[in-house]
Amino acid sequence: MTDKTALTPATHTTPPAKFSHGVRKGNILQVAGQVGFLPAVEGRAPTPAGPTLREQTLQTLANVRAVLEEGGATWDDAMMIRVYLTDVDHFAEMNEIYNQYFEEQGLKEAPAARTTVYVGLPKGLLIEIDALAVLG
Amino acid sequence: MTDKTALTPATHTTPPAKFSHGVRKGNILQVAGQVGFLPAVEGRAPTPAGPTLREQTLQTLANVRAVLEEGGATWDDAMMIRVYLTDVDHFAEMNEIYNQYFEEQGLKEAPAARTTVYVGLPKGLLIEIDALAVLG
Amino acid sequence: MTDKTALTPATHTTPPAKFSHGVRKGNILQVAGQVGFLPAVEGRAPTPAGPTLREQTLQTLANVRAVLEEGGATWDDAMMIRVYLTDVDHFAEMNEIYNQYFEEQGLKEAPAARTTVYVGLPKGLLIEIDALAVLG
Repeated sequence: MTDKTALTPATHTTPPAKFSHGVRKGNILQVAGQVGFLPAVEGRAPTPAGPTLREQTLQTLANVRAVLEEGGATWDDAMMIRVYLTDVDHFAEMNEIYNQYFEEQGLKEAPAARTTVYVGLPKGLLIEIDALAVLG
Repeated sequence: MTDKTALTPATHTTPPAKFSHGVRKGNILQVAGQVGFLPAVEGRAPTPAGPTLREQTLQTLANVRAVLEEGGATWDDAMMIRVYLTDVDHFAEMNEIYNQYFEEQGLKEAPAARTTVYVGLPKGLLIEIDALAVLG
Repeated sequence: MTDKTALTPATHTTPPAKFSHGVRKGNILQVAGQVGFLPAVEGRAPTPAGPTLREQTLQTLANVRAVLEEGGATWDDAMMIRVYLTDVDHFAEMNEIYNQYFEEQGLKEAPAARTTVYVGLPKGLLIEIDALAVLG
């Protein structure tokens, strides 16, 4: 029996329901849907990094990475990254930010697979990302 | 070679296409998208548990659980729960129902990760949920 | 340490960002969101197989299959198939095409689990599909 462990980076806001920001069991790590919320501040409601796609995308990626690291993983372990955007017109800009971000991360292995679809998100949020990782 | 097994709870309606309500292979169990259909009745079309978010959410969770159990898993094995809602205004109420449900389930391990997004669903359906589990 | 391998069928168009059409690590294979683009032609922009749901669905399934095969897998290894449609009215026709396709594939094991939701996609695209496989 392998235990399932909740992954809760110290900087993260409390999930709005009974779920974990991430879980790891054996070599499988699942990151819950992350959005562009800034690190939590006691007594402040969850606050997006800013109104722009760039600010929210970079913060969201940082939040996903924090969960991966909390579980002992890195971007190199990511198998699948699911990107939810609210507007098809954001695709090109998101890709640009995404490419630049991952270039700076200096991946050693192949980039993860990815699916991008366009959905509704709570007001003020332009992007949500979750990820599946397999540790090596 | 590990065999992949279809998971088909006796109570479930027949899938509307060539897919399984769930599959298990080795220690990985995937639950297909479940909606709030009541247990199947011979000769009756698939019927939602009711028109309300509460009725449909609870029935959907029961349907996911039935597939997990058919594969020898429990909610404690769930790594990821994907919630699809049709209306952002349902988020708070869904969370309330979700929390109460999982409190009653008495999880021994960490709650699963979760992503909630807002999409279109067939007429009359307010929620769809799928899940990935890793058995221990 | 198991290496993560990018899966890039020779026929596929270059991804529009720093992600892989598929990745395999150990026995887990993840196929990125595929759409109905025809095999790539040098110097031609990615081109859908046609404007109809049938043309795009069959091409999308062929593209998913190519990634599975690039990683040494077949449809029998597929655990989960995620179908993104843009229009609820396409559900019945997609199921018909899907069933016929998989009948022709002659699965030896249980069909994969599946979730279908209705989202936005880039202009001209009616369907997107991704898949998770576990090799045996």
